[in-house]
Amino acid sequence: MALIVQKYGGSSVADAERIRNVARRIAATYDGGNQVVVVVSAMGKTTDGLIEMASQLNDNPREREMDLLLSTGEVVSSALVTMALHAMGYDAIGLTGWQAGIRTDALHRRARIVDIDPSRIQDELKQNRIVIVAGFQGMTDEQDITTLGRGASDTTAVAMAAALKAQCQIYTDVPGIFTTDPRVEPRARKLNEISYDEMLELASLGAKVMHNRSVELGAIYEVPITVASSFSDEPGTLIHGSVAMEVRNKVRGIAHDTNVAKITVVGVPDRPGIASSIFAPLAEAGLSVDTIVQNTGIEHRTDLTFTVARTDLAKAMAVIRPIAQAIDARDCVSADHLAKVSIVGTGIQNAPGYAARMFETLSKNNINIDMITTSEIRITCVIEADQVQKAVRALHEAFELEKPEE
Amino acid sequence: MALIVQKYGGSSVADAERIRNVARRIAATYDGGNQVVVVVSAMGKTTDGLIEMASQLNDNPREREMDLLLSTGEVVSSALVTMALHAMGYDAIGLTGWQAGIRTDALHRRARIVDIDPSRIQDELKQNRIVIVAGFQGMTDEQDITTLGRGASDTTAVAMAAALKAQCQIYTDVPGIFTTDPRVEPRARKLNEISYDEMLELASLGAKVMHNRSVELGAIYEVPITVASSFSDEPGTLIHGSVAMEVRNKVRGIAHDTNVAKITVVGVPDRPGIASSIFAPLAEAGLSVDTIVQNTGIEHRTDLTFTVARTDLAKAMAVIRPIAQAIDARDCVSADHLAKVSIVGTGIQNAPGYAARMFETLSKNNINIDMITTSEIRITCVIEADQVQKAVRALHEAFELEKPEE
Repeated sequence: MALIVQKYGGSSVADAERIRNVARRIAATYDGGNQVVVVVSAMGKTTDGLIEMASQLNDNPREREMDLLLSTGEVVSSALVTMALHAMGYDAIGLTGWQAGIRTDALHRRARIVDIDPSRIQDELKQNRIVIVAGFQGMTDEQDITTLGRGASDTTAVAMAAALKAQCQIYTDVPGIFTTDPRVEPRARKLNEISYDEMLELASLGAKVMHNRSVELGAIYEVPITVASSFSDEPGTLIHGSVAMEVRNKVRGIAHDTNVAKITVVGVPDRPGIASSIFAPLAEAGLSVDTIVQNTGIEHRTDLTFTVARTDLAKAMAVIRPIAQAIDARDCVSADHLAKVSIVGTGIQNAPGYAARMFETLSKNNINIDMITTSEIRITCVIEADQVQKAVRALHEAFELEKPEE
Repeated sequence: MALIVQKYGGSSVADAERIRNVARRIAATYDGGNQVVVVVSAMGKTTDGLIEMASQLNDNPREREMDLLLSTGEVVSSALVTMALHAMGYDAIGLTGWQAGIRTDALHRRARIVDIDPSRIQDELKQNRIVIVAGFQGMTDEQDITTLGRGASDTTAVAMAAALKAQCQIYTDVPGIFTTDPRVEPRARKLNEISYDEMLELASLGAKVMHNRSVELGAIYEVPITVASSFSDEPGTLIHGSVAMEVRNKVRGIAHDTNVAKITVVGVPDRPGIASSIFAPLAEAGLSVDTIVQNTGIEHRTDLTFTVARTDLAKAMAVIRPIAQAIDARDCVSADHLAKVSIVGTGIQNAPGYAARMFETLSKNNINIDMITTSEIRITCVIEADQVQKAVRALHEAFELEKPEE
């Protein structure tokens, strides 16, 4: 008998028929002799609807009350999925996040789970009940309701699996993790398994299947996570730490992100503390900076280039312009309509052949590389956004990703 | 500085514009130098929508999960009203029923409040905050969410006023309590004040302005309750214990109820225990019986007649038929399309002139009286349903209810 935590996303519980489908899948898992805890998201566009209602009353609603409001969506789902199981003759119980023992810090709308007290859930499991938990939410020590950030029902599920020492199954509207986005490259192939690190790189580079914090949590607590479709019985992708040796040292996937802009501060005086005086105010403004390149220049001046999300460009320029003036830089320029394309795979950064083949492939396809950045398991090139599709498809072919795993 | 508990019903918070209107009223009360606690219902038809969703998944959903589901409607309202107050520059905080300290028994969907721990609310009031509480709900000792029954946000408000030793103001979509239903008698007049007992009789006889349990609670804890419209600034009706002497011993209102049927068990053997053998099974089936009349008959047999809600008639007949056979009654017949019309006023039952004038008025209007029943402060006649309007208008005129109070 295994203990399994399943998570069903908003599109999987969007209406009564889909809720019944989810209940059938839960029941089948229970009938397979398992103990089952289920984490559910709000139905379909419920959260968007609640945000819209709030915006009609307050341009800038307080985060505490937004959490009180938004948390209701997942509670509705947990009650309805539980009722569907009852109708099928299964004993089940619906719980809010706080009833399920999820305790968080008080950072409303982006709270972090600080502790899970699983005693209520364990009591219910002992009575052979299926437990349906409202995802995305918890409670502070002051008994205020918090939410964990957009898409964080994944985090609830992985944290719950860690607390219960259970397996975790994330059911969503795609059949698993692919070598690249199938809308860009139809020959994209579903991976049978992937490491936490590789998954994190893919997710942070635009593969929106799973919430990044949930993968991090899975890595820390070594929770094996299966990502699969709630609409089919295909096996999905296993995210875990012990990826077989034969699939290491290979490119595992191609990620891309078209929400990229770059800012160059031109002619920065080359003296200590300059980088900090530029990046500290950006961090304070809540702006993520990425891919920083510093070119050594002439006359003790350098050009400092970095990328930001294109959607943050205006805000970032407003922060940077006065700083550039204050530090006596020559100019401050920006370019949007950029994109990142990345190859991801454990070990590839230390194997020089991969970088060379990536650059050669892009070059052969007349794609200019604007910036290059690497991590332990990833090589990323910044290119023109309108060349992304060509780049992804060329790299997918160059690294033979359409070929099945051993 | 007074401490005031206000309650706004579902139609008063049905959309953003109405929520803003409610927020302005709350703010005006606060600006008047008062401490304000507000209890809100779910927006408009929210509860009906949630019940409909549940019915798509389960014909007979468990009450615990219905409570989990339905309680979300009032939480949404409390968050939104709070946000509207924030937008107007007022400090306010939204609380669920359990956060507000409302503890109930475990009778889901009709839970009773067993205790209110007002410490959180008192803390918030000390910080000069307006407190917005989700009505209709509480929590059991086992931390399960309960609801208090349809329309029970009134009960939340009165119980909260009792716990805080506050005044209670119920804002609804009518301007107060009327001498009779203004849709039946356009000359119906709004009462300035009414006693708890009179209000209870009016409410139980079809005046749907306030939830009966809330009036009972008000009577027990001597909470003065004002009922007024949330759409106007008219003063409303004060429900309290100390109605002025000069308005006692008067007919205060005419109530009517058209949801009435009667059942007659014919030729019941006249022996001890018979009444109990008929009424105990009805009570067990959850059926309320009212207006019981027993006619002494011939041959040691009697006819036993009682009324039930017309909507319960089929269920009641299914219970009664086998019992009638078992106790050797001659027959069991029913009549629907009946109605009750009542005159209500403290002291009138002991003043014979009122009953006489009521019967005379009905007789003059060719209205046949089928059954008569009286309470301490009420005289009720069962008549044909299609004669209700005529009866109400004739009695309203006979007792001069259109004339203003002193």
